[in-house]
Amino acid sequence: MSDLKTQFEKFFYPKSIAVVGASEKAGKIGAEIFRNLAFYDYKYKDKVYPVNPKHDKIMGIKAYPKIEDIPDKVDLAVVSIGAKFIPDLVESCGKKGIKNMVIVSGGFKELGTEEGKSYEKKMIENAKKYGVRLIGPNCIGVLNAEIGLDTFFQSHEHMIRPKPGSIAFLTQSGTFGCSFLEWAAESPVGISKFVSYGNRSDVDEADLITYLDQDEKTKVIAIYMEGLSDGRKFMNAAKTITKHKPIVVLKAGRSKAGARAAVSHTGWLGGSEKIYDAAFKQSGIIRVNNFEELFDAAKAIAMQDYAKGPRIGLVSNGAGPMIMAIDEIERRGLELPQISEDIEKQLKEKLPPFYIVHNPVDITGSATPNDYEIVLEHLAKDPNIDILMPFFVFQNTLIDESIVDVMEKINKLGKPVIGGSAGGPYTKKITDAIESVGVPMYPIAERVVAAAQALYINGKNLNK
Amino acid sequence: MSDLKTQFEKFFYPKSIAVVGASEKAGKIGAEIFRNLAFYDYKYKDKVYPVNPKHDKIMGIKAYPKIEDIPDKVDLAVVSIGAKFIPDLVESCGKKGIKNMVIVSGGFKELGTEEGKSYEKKMIENAKKYGVRLIGPNCIGVLNAEIGLDTFFQSHEHMIRPKPGSIAFLTQSGTFGCSFLEWAAESPVGISKFVSYGNRSDVDEADLITYLDQDEKTKVIAIYMEGLSDGRKFMNAAKTITKHKPIVVLKAGRSKAGARAAVSHTGWLGGSEKIYDAAFKQSGIIRVNNFEELFDAAKAIAMQDYAKGPRIGLVSNGAGPMIMAIDEIERRGLELPQISEDIEKQLKEKLPPFYIVHNPVDITGSATPNDYEIVLEHLAKDPNIDILMPFFVFQNTLIDESIVDVMEKINKLGKPVIGGSAGGPYTKKITDAIESVGVPMYPIAERVVAAAQALYINGKNLNK
Repeated sequence: MSDLKTQFEKFFYPKSIAVVGASEKAGKIGAEIFRNLAFYDYKYKDKVYPVNPKHDKIMGIKAYPKIEDIPDKVDLAVVSIGAKFIPDLVESCGKKGIKNMVIVSGGFKELGTEEGKSYEKKMIENAKKYGVRLIGPNCIGVLNAEIGLDTFFQSHEHMIRPKPGSIAFLTQSGTFGCSFLEWAAESPVGISKFVSYGNRSDVDEADLITYLDQDEKTKVIAIYMEGLSDGRKFMNAAKTITKHKPIVVLKAGRSKAGARAAVSHTGWLGGSEKIYDAAFKQSGIIRVNNFEELFDAAKAIAMQDYAKGPRIGLVSNGAGPMIMAIDEIERRGLELPQISEDIEKQLKEKLPPFYIVHNPVDITGSATPNDYEIVLEHLAKDPNIDILMPFFVFQNTLIDESIVDVMEKINKLGKPVIGGSAGGPYTKKITDAIESVGVPMYPIAERVVAAAQALYINGKNLNK
Repeated sequence: MSDLKTQFEKFFYPKSIAVVGASEKAGKIGAEIFRNLAFYDYKYKDKVYPVNPKHDKIMGIKAYPKIEDIPDKVDLAVVSIGAKFIPDLVESCGKKGIKNMVIVSGGFKELGTEEGKSYEKKMIENAKKYGVRLIGPNCIGVLNAEIGLDTFFQSHEHMIRPKPGSIAFLTQSGTFGCSFLEWAAESPVGISKFVSYGNRSDVDEADLITYLDQDEKTKVIAIYMEGLSDGRKFMNAAKTITKHKPIVVLKAGRSKAGARAAVSHTGWLGGSEKIYDAAFKQSGIIRVNNFEELFDAAKAIAMQDYAKGPRIGLVSNGAGPMIMAIDEIERRGLELPQISEDIEKQLKEKLPPFYIVHNPVDITGSATPNDYEIVLEHLAKDPNIDILMPFFVFQNTLIDESIVDVMEKINKLGKPVIGGSAGGPYTKKITDAIESVGVPMYPIAERVVAAAQALYINGKNLNK
């Protein structure tokens, strides 16, 4: 194992955890973290130790006044006590051999006060001195669905947890963390590792992507960031990684006011937008424009192979969304090629004469699931087409649930498939079923095309 | 009543309907239209007459060989027979005194064939000759939720219908029609009138907005269009209407390829994008960029008053989405002003010292519903603020359902309120509850800000 792999292993696979600041008082951060770890899905929940000098027991479990009082070995400390106590706690952890700490507490650099800055400085000094690695402060910490681990203070009633899967999500904002994880929980994709890193006073994005690069469970890394502390370190790491593992980034603070707000949120300088844009591009990073696009792109990459080129084959039983898709394909620099002559000929022979067999293929309101099968099978064979993009009007009575089997079959033909549909309960039912057989679906054409673009950029990176 | 009001009344309030092309065969368009009209919510479903020369009965109901055989008065004919029979049918309808027809059938101009064009020409000639007004062809027709009327061939199992409400939606694409109506059905907003007009060979957008301008049930008109047949007529009408009733437009075909596709879909010329943009602006039309934005803007306007200015007051218990909102506020030319000095002072006195009382107001992960109430009440009083924009992390354990009562109260303070939240089942439950008390909610910051911009543009138009 590399150094980083050894150092980070216990953030994600701890077999015992101390919760420093565990409390009885519902709603208090230390209470919620302890409850979530000791009473829910964490594989080693019998090895969760509350640390609190004022109570003998927390929620019926023996508490320890100080971390050094815990008789057992502790792999990870999760901390929610006041900032001023934390530098000393880092020292105690180091001495006890606890090399991994998640600092949930705020009250550091992000306040902009001299006091806050000095706590952060001392905390880092002690961490370096004792060889302790820190995630945070001012964050919600880590999740590893594989062993039911999370250090969150969000209750299970208010926030569902995702299943294990292939997307890693790193985020400076805990809020986006909660939303992303719940969206994943309600979709067919799962999460490999999650880190909300807040002020990132020690472990930073470059460290994390380097660790995740070696993590076999992770197929794609998604990141929400407000600014980088060490841009060069991150870009250098990213440049190597994106050649074999895609990285999708949403960076906030594009506007002047947004950049100022980002600084005050986690206390880091933003840097110029133009520099970021160029550096992302050079590093093979897939940059997205908003939070939905971030999830959409990660989902597409997790569910589908990369695209070998930018050429899209469109088919639909309703024209409106296709026309929006055509606009977006042009805007994003993708292509809508002619269908190969012989494929077009075959399609015309097999389809009713009033279907319009160009690209897009308009199979009209009369289309059946079988018509989709015919068209998509042929487009999958067409050397002119790299990405299959069906849109569906499931409201049309002639489209029934057999479309799910069709899509399962089409999804095995060796070309990426990505689709669109928008509607109510029946549409949602069929859409979910299609996603469950592996085809990612989105409600509007712009989001389908944006996700397809991510598959294309990923393909370009991998084949460099 | 004006001429147009008289002419159009029976499209939306027919008390008897003939379904020409009604059929027994499930899945056939004529069968589905007839089933939906005769067996579901239509107020006068006992007065739905199937016309079919081959059957005595359709679904157990007496059928008539020809429309002139129907002994009763017929207000509206809904037609799904072959294009070539339709010019004569228009004549028959005219002679029987049926002045309103919805032509669902395709096979006209949109095919690009001489035959198709000639049917369309003859159909229009007969309509003019006999004073018949036509919606369509190549469309899904009309809906008026007030009397449970729709001429759709989409089954109730596949497509739920919206409740009555204040949004009118006009669309060239039936597909977008289905999606919009189902989104409305699953939201707190309702639909006043709906028209899918397809090739609009007779009744066009200008006619429809002029009719809707006089329709008291309609508060906002949303339109999806691919191109206008008579741009000047539409813009002239819109210019007057937007001074008292907002019009939101999504126009497809921005790209060259998209414009070509739009032409082939409904057979109309697109026209230059630059001309459209300028004309929309001059006419006070709120132009949106994609289909989600179209629904979002209509929903915001339906649920909230117009904004008196562009100045937004932001508050959240999670910073990430706020930073994205700040970027978008700048991008869209809205403003994020300083909070008034005395209001800021009052807030600082009432809130914990670690809350950041600027604009945005960051009430941190420690925020309670009561904190939201304090902040929003004060922002509502602040003469510097026109629009209240709260974001919520409902995953945080300290935010409970009492936030719904808070938002109900805030919604009555005389300033538009529009919010954001993203997550899983608990977030959805609270979000829906907040919408049910009148505050529109969206999942990402960009969509919240886009909807706020619609309220602002509407305000500018109304106060001209």
